[in-house]
Amino acid sequence: MLLNRERAQLLMEQEGVDGLVASTLENCFYMTGVWNIGQELFPHDTQAYVVATRDDVAAAVMVTSMGEADLTLGANSSLRDVVTYGRFFRELLAGQSLNEDEERIKAITLERQPEEDALSALVSALRLCQLDQKVVAVDERGPNRDLLSELQTRLPGATFVPASQLFRRIRMVKTGEELERMEGALRITENAFRKTVAEAAPGVTERELFHVFEKAITAGGARPGFTLLRFGRGMALGQVPAGDTQLQTNDYIWFDIGCTFKGYRSDIGRVVPVGEPSAHLVELFGAVRAGQDRAIELMTPGRLASEVFEGAMERVRETGIPHYKRHHVGHGIGAEFYDLPIITPTAHVALEPNMIFEVETPYYEMGFGGAFIEDTVLITESGNRILTELSRDLVPAASVAPRR
Amino acid sequence: MLLNRERAQLLMEQEGVDGLVASTLENCFYMTGVWNIGQELFPHDTQAYVVATRDDVAAAVMVTSMGEADLTLGANSSLRDVVTYGRFFRELLAGQSLNEDEERIKAITLERQPEEDALSALVSALRLCQLDQKVVAVDERGPNRDLLSELQTRLPGATFVPASQLFRRIRMVKTGEELERMEGALRITENAFRKTVAEAAPGVTERELFHVFEKAITAGGARPGFTLLRFGRGMALGQVPAGDTQLQTNDYIWFDIGCTFKGYRSDIGRVVPVGEPSAHLVELFGAVRAGQDRAIELMTPGRLASEVFEGAMERVRETGIPHYKRHHVGHGIGAEFYDLPIITPTAHVALEPNMIFEVETPYYEMGFGGAFIEDTVLITESGNRILTELSRDLVPAASVAPRR
Repeated sequence: MLLNRERAQLLMEQEGVDGLVASTLENCFYMTGVWNIGQELFPHDTQAYVVATRDDVAAAVMVTSMGEADLTLGANSSLRDVVTYGRFFRELLAGQSLNEDEERIKAITLERQPEEDALSALVSALRLCQLDQKVVAVDERGPNRDLLSELQTRLPGATFVPASQLFRRIRMVKTGEELERMEGALRITENAFRKTVAEAAPGVTERELFHVFEKAITAGGARPGFTLLRFGRGMALGQVPAGDTQLQTNDYIWFDIGCTFKGYRSDIGRVVPVGEPSAHLVELFGAVRAGQDRAIELMTPGRLASEVFEGAMERVRETGIPHYKRHHVGHGIGAEFYDLPIITPTAHVALEPNMIFEVETPYYEMGFGGAFIEDTVLITESGNRILTELSRDLVPAASVAPRR
Repeated sequence: MLLNRERAQLLMEQEGVDGLVASTLENCFYMTGVWNIGQELFPHDTQAYVVATRDDVAAAVMVTSMGEADLTLGANSSLRDVVTYGRFFRELLAGQSLNEDEERIKAITLERQPEEDALSALVSALRLCQLDQKVVAVDERGPNRDLLSELQTRLPGATFVPASQLFRRIRMVKTGEELERMEGALRITENAFRKTVAEAAPGVTERELFHVFEKAITAGGARPGFTLLRFGRGMALGQVPAGDTQLQTNDYIWFDIGCTFKGYRSDIGRVVPVGEPSAHLVELFGAVRAGQDRAIELMTPGRLASEVFEGAMERVRETGIPHYKRHHVGHGIGAEFYDLPIITPTAHVALEPNMIFEVETPYYEMGFGGAFIEDTVLITESGNRILTELSRDLVPAASVAPRR
């Protein structure tokens, strides 16, 4: 299960919350295991909710449009019920025999009346969970901007409070299933990275390597997420789409890359010299790597994220980039590319076992490019474990992936 | 340019609106040509805006975080200015010479102070456009839920009204650049469809064909969008992810597939018999195809979308599915998978040249599957043109793509 039940219950207790309502793709997915393509394709319009109570957060009730009701077949087996709304037509001719899945969808969609609209369905689900006189935390970031006030009007006996930060705090500490999916995403990303570096001969364009990378991600069974790939000085303006710039001898390639695998994200950063790295690149890389090393060294249970930030910044400045400035040196990752905590100077949040972080100390220098390394780190009971399997050194392209 | 300038100006005049603010990925992209990966990866958090005035909607001002300021290099050349906010560090060492792109980013990020936050930057941009005493339509669907009220407090002399429907109505009528990108998306999707059908031998699983399709989309240079691919009766529960179901002799494959190419979407639907189609499938397909034909026949400038709906429904019912029910028989498509108008019984919207529609008459039957055809149709001055190049008949797999 993706959901960390014990943690959800604990934080709900601490906040005095009896019920929880998810409204975004990621939070609904986290609660049920269902990746709702309606929410994915129509983020500004599709309303879907998941309602759970503190005493049994896994026994959730899904609220879904009739059109997406079939998605409930993929939900956790602990799902308690489904409330539908709206109109969508699946016919059933007389005498047709149905299999188990079809019988389940028939029970949800043909043997019950859907509610008129999403709000009414959510109100029904809250009543079903006996939350209509309780304190309910509702993710306020879904497509209905007025959800909390509309719920308050419909259920005046309940108290509704925003939940997006509570969800983020629950999701900070990962379950085994989440870890497994993220390791899957990492392996696919690493393989795609190696395949891409294998094509990195002078003359190849950024766009061509971009394409090699995204093809390799899809071939691995994932979906491309972000593919920031630029040559040398282009790195300092790195979010512009990969273009016709050709790789030069003794240049380098910047990668800041990630994918989505079974709903979970990856995020890896490297610079890869082609031929001989310049002394300036070696020096910059030495500093950002030392800073990342220091961050990882500090990442043990109980340490504050802000202490990790300070340690990493100090080390980069000491070891080669005295003017180094940065707003964060890493972030959680999970069902979103940025989960909490973010490793900033003001994040006085203690690290806990099973948090998963991206740790990065990027340096951008206009006219040159910069240096970069980013890896995924799991906090363990005794310290941490780096989940990325790529070498963390400044490895030339020819050694990352020998040319065929 | 993606932006339909004349139409934007006309509708703004009609609505008495002096200025326009985009806040979502799709609308910012539409106004500037910039696909903001911050908005894509962090839809609940990244604030970016585009401000335009009625007298020259193409001369927009972008509001962007310092981190994403480099994206402005990809904007329409008509872009008027950029206002930044927040913190992000790109260093510039003394004596470094810069190229043209770097000089532009230096001017935006190093030679000016960023605003403290996104709201302040947006207020600045509105003042820069002299909209602080005017009527301004603001897309209310961005991540800041309180944007309109916060703007009203900061600029009490202006009047702020919601803009999401105005944006949708502007975007209904496509420009040549939009058409070109959508035709690109269609060709990639059609090629991926053919490659997938070529692998459709008895014994292959839904998951395997899903993978063939998504690899082909990426190989074509696009991003996978949605890949609904199920065998036979699975179609009636079609949104569940493709699984281990094996293709049977004399079964059929349902495709409802689309991708994203240069920010534009495709959406194609087919059922493909493997071996001999059953009499029931032939009959159902005949009816949904006749309904789609009738819809397309009716799709001429001036016709109401609701008339197209009624005509298609009537025809499906007359030609083989007397109990046919459906909430819509098509929808606009563009930078979003569903643009306006939606072809529903209540859409009393007249069709105009350069609208682009998906036209579909899906029928889902539990225990059997159903029948499906969906094509892309451009409204022209004299009628319409079907943009999909695939055969619209019930073509067996062996004829779609001969086995190698």
